[in-house]
Amino acid sequence: MKRLFITATITIALSLSTITMTTAIAGEILHQVSTIDALLAGLYDGVTTVEDLKMQGNLGIGTFDSLDGEMIVVDGQVFRVSADGGARVVADDETTPFSSVTNFTAEQQLQLPKKTTLDTLKSLIVEAGLSPNLFHAFRLEGRFNTVATRSVPRQTKPYAPLVEVVKSQPLFNFEQVDGVMVGFYCPAYVKGINVPGYHLHFLTADHSAGGHVLSFSTNQVTLAIDTLPRFALQLPTSPEFAQVDLKRDRQLELKKVEQ
Amino acid sequence: MKRLFITATITIALSLSTITMTTAIAGEILHQVSTIDALLAGLYDGVTTVEDLKMQGNLGIGTFDSLDGEMIVVDGQVFRVSADGGARVVADDETTPFSSVTNFTAEQQLQLPKKTTLDTLKSLIVEAGLSPNLFHAFRLEGRFNTVATRSVPRQTKPYAPLVEVVKSQPLFNFEQVDGVMVGFYCPAYVKGINVPGYHLHFLTADHSAGGHVLSFSTNQVTLAIDTLPRFALQLPTSPEFAQVDLKRDRQLELKKVEQ
Repeated sequence: MKRLFITATITIALSLSTITMTTAIAGEILHQVSTIDALLAGLYDGVTTVEDLKMQGNLGIGTFDSLDGEMIVVDGQVFRVSADGGARVVADDETTPFSSVTNFTAEQQLQLPKKTTLDTLKSLIVEAGLSPNLFHAFRLEGRFNTVATRSVPRQTKPYAPLVEVVKSQPLFNFEQVDGVMVGFYCPAYVKGINVPGYHLHFLTADHSAGGHVLSFSTNQVTLAIDTLPRFALQLPTSPEFAQVDLKRDRQLELKKVEQ
Repeated sequence: MKRLFITATITIALSLSTITMTTAIAGEILHQVSTIDALLAGLYDGVTTVEDLKMQGNLGIGTFDSLDGEMIVVDGQVFRVSADGGARVVADDETTPFSSVTNFTAEQQLQLPKKTTLDTLKSLIVEAGLSPNLFHAFRLEGRFNTVATRSVPRQTKPYAPLVEVVKSQPLFNFEQVDGVMVGFYCPAYVKGINVPGYHLHFLTADHSAGGHVLSFSTNQVTLAIDTLPRFALQLPTSPEFAQVDLKRDRQLELKKVEQ
């Protein structure tokens, strides 16, 4: 493929101390299994193995068969944060109904100002000139003042829709915690396929806990960014996926599920 | 990837004479360059060469740099139907701003009833049980009673939006014509990325004419179908794509452009 290159510049006015920055966007791919609307509709049966997922990327997020916890993929290791808040490495033969991974290379790295929150991070990224029309992978690592997460409990059939499941989601609060947060920015046009905007999962540095990120405030945290100009979608070929209603707009449900 | 297989059955009640049918859906990929909303917004600069596109698939549709005509890819050959209605093979170093291709293998083949139109084709496919949630590639070949097409004239900068360009689109009508029609069904959730529903281009059997299909009626036509459970999107990394407004809903514009 002929590739055009763009330069992402960090405005000095942001007062960010840039550690390293590469200007070229390579052909990195966001690999995704199934669609967010299928998950919202309650399609929790795993369709891809953890082994196969690891071949597609070394950083990412998702969930597991039967909606059994939050998935976080860091440095090629796949972790589950269970409904009890505990994190464990997941066996290769487990499966995922929905996940997004990439082979992460830090194109930009910068030290975040103290007390950066999810909202101020979004502003920083907009001001930094990252295109809202491309996919971006993020890795935030260091000491956080606070992190609030949730997980989801393993479901049994018949599966309830995700918006029902999260009504009783277990919540976890961390203070002055060392850890890593990974995830993605997806463009608005992936509505129905993935989560438009930001979606991050957290894992403590000792790999003992974490979850789906609801909010955070940074202490000493480094942000690494990888812009992904390619998106590869692997759809389930199960009868359940073939028949589920994916025409309905589920953005309201998604909003409730993400918060 | 672990793959699940589904069987697509053709209901006998349709009175279709099934020629051959394979039941397994393999891992075929719909490869796409850029997004339909970027094209609607007037991003007509080519970003991928015809040579690279041919490496991604041997059947497909699209357009060329400067919106110079309708693209149809048949048996690995890339044709342009120009604004004068004439079709010609396109050189490898030409480029495309928007296109969709796949390596086509006929999983199902059936003889269409005479006087099948685009609307009755849609009904047949729904009744045949093809999932609305997966991508499907089509190849219709044989004698058509009628085919109505259009093309688009080469544009110069500053580019006008597509909805303006098509207001003066040249139209072409064929009667009792032999030819091939290729294209895709895309699920509703690709709104903004590709055309939800059906999108077909036509090429006469003598490779002299064709265009973007507006309507048709079959005489003796065979339909071949290839279901594609994978979708790979290659986004432009140009400043124009990075900055274009892709948040706006352009479905009304798309409707005007497709008709």
